[in-house]
Amino acid sequence: MIQKANSVNKALEEAVLLKEPLKIHESMRYSLLAGGKRVRPMLCIAACELVGGHESTAMPAACAVEMIHTMSLMHDDLPCMDNDDLRRGKPTNHKIFGEDVAVLAGDALLAFSFEHIATSTKEVSSDRLIRVVGELAKCIGSEGLVAGQVVDICSEGQSGVGLEHLEFIHVHKTAALLEGSVVLGAILGGANDEDVEKLRKFARCIGLLFQVVDDILDVTKSSEELGKTAGKDLVADKTTYPKLIGIEKSREFADKLNREAQEQLLGFDQEKAAPLIALANYIAYRDN
Amino acid sequence: MIQKANSVNKALEEAVLLKEPLKIHESMRYSLLAGGKRVRPMLCIAACELVGGHESTAMPAACAVEMIHTMSLMHDDLPCMDNDDLRRGKPTNHKIFGEDVAVLAGDALLAFSFEHIATSTKEVSSDRLIRVVGELAKCIGSEGLVAGQVVDICSEGQSGVGLEHLEFIHVHKTAALLEGSVVLGAILGGANDEDVEKLRKFARCIGLLFQVVDDILDVTKSSEELGKTAGKDLVADKTTYPKLIGIEKSREFADKLNREAQEQLLGFDQEKAAPLIALANYIAYRDN
Repeated sequence: MIQKANSVNKALEEAVLLKEPLKIHESMRYSLLAGGKRVRPMLCIAACELVGGHESTAMPAACAVEMIHTMSLMHDDLPCMDNDDLRRGKPTNHKIFGEDVAVLAGDALLAFSFEHIATSTKEVSSDRLIRVVGELAKCIGSEGLVAGQVVDICSEGQSGVGLEHLEFIHVHKTAALLEGSVVLGAILGGANDEDVEKLRKFARCIGLLFQVVDDILDVTKSSEELGKTAGKDLVADKTTYPKLIGIEKSREFADKLNREAQEQLLGFDQEKAAPLIALANYIAYRDN
Repeated sequence: MIQKANSVNKALEEAVLLKEPLKIHESMRYSLLAGGKRVRPMLCIAACELVGGHESTAMPAACAVEMIHTMSLMHDDLPCMDNDDLRRGKPTNHKIFGEDVAVLAGDALLAFSFEHIATSTKEVSSDRLIRVVGELAKCIGSEGLVAGQVVDICSEGQSGVGLEHLEFIHVHKTAALLEGSVVLGAILGGANDEDVEKLRKFARCIGLLFQVVDDILDVTKSSEELGKTAGKDLVADKTTYPKLIGIEKSREFADKLNREAQEQLLGFDQEKAAPLIALANYIAYRDN
């Protein structure tokens, strides 16, 4: 997994070069190359390889999903949103470059993710590429990431937020892009429609799993261990799984989601499925 | 032209429906359907028709460029950017929906523009569609709109900003998306590479023209006439063409750009080129 993360880091470094205008590219690179866990790119590549594709075929899309993830963090951290000072163990983008540049650098990463897929993907038919563009766009916008974020914002401090509402937020805010990462990889690797849908279901489960584990970590770990501000859900009076059903039941729910996810992979060559299984287990049992 | 603008308004209305989560779609629609001049969509459709394509073929892309234009205005108007209260004669998006939602609604429009092109364009090969995605993305990001905006921000209040620097800002901040609008229409309409490049040059000239005229209007018209805050370039101590070379020479430069633009159209059927010529003249002689 570390080797894959290194390939992704190298590809990201080469995708967004430091050029004029310097300030915007510095800002984009500051957050993009800040050493995240690269879970989304690795999911994209693993899904592509599972269905018989090559790492190099998935790499531009793998970089694209990381650009989207980074841009969503940059905008979420803004003073008008979560107003966060710490991210990936470093000061947040707007703390270094100013709010105006942080907004623009996020916009630029969002646009560039599509450019990178459209112009740098090799050996994939344009028919599949256009499907990839449609899938990626959908998981970002008002039916994906943004939907989750806006409902999350509107729910802060509200009492009476139930499990269904919480799941809507998580499915959109977190699971949508994880789903996109896997589905993009599958389409690029040449998967048939049936396999794309199996992998979509796998991704939905680990997407929700990812956020349930995030909620648990937020109440059980320190800021130093997480590399970002801990306990902020409590401070913001956010509804979380531990708050609604307790830590023990949250852990049980996480285990159930991991099992459901891995059941989707049973029909595939188990040796080839090993990286996706490892990623699911990593998401379930990570400690930051 | 009014008929075309009405078709575009109808298509925009149908592209972004009011659905859950309501707040984000209300915010997107508030700015998108606020009755702009729809110059970019009309350029896109006119370029498509000039090379033999149909309005319906260009319409999703025409809507997409208007979504991008709207999103750039929403983000530019934010307190951390130009901090503007008035746009298209109405309170700016963040004044109504809050800064957080205005940032997110802009992000959603940016993502949706690509989804709309990828999933709603009919009767165009995927090869051409992928070219369209690449062209659109490039004119938004750190080599397009965003580049212009960031250099503009960094130049405010700076002395010694010369013509070359000013042209960089305008070419990126304004001309890039106008160029994109025309080029997208040409590609979708089936233009050969030579005609795409002629139309690209046409668009670059009218793009710069658009901004020179904007600069002139900012110092000669009232806020009421413009539907946005007038005189704000002076207040922000921004470098503009009137400031650098005076109003008279700015008008001469505008005329020169309009002539250069229209020269690019000489090789085309003049009857079919009439809408693009009319749009160039509109951009040159508009009064808001």
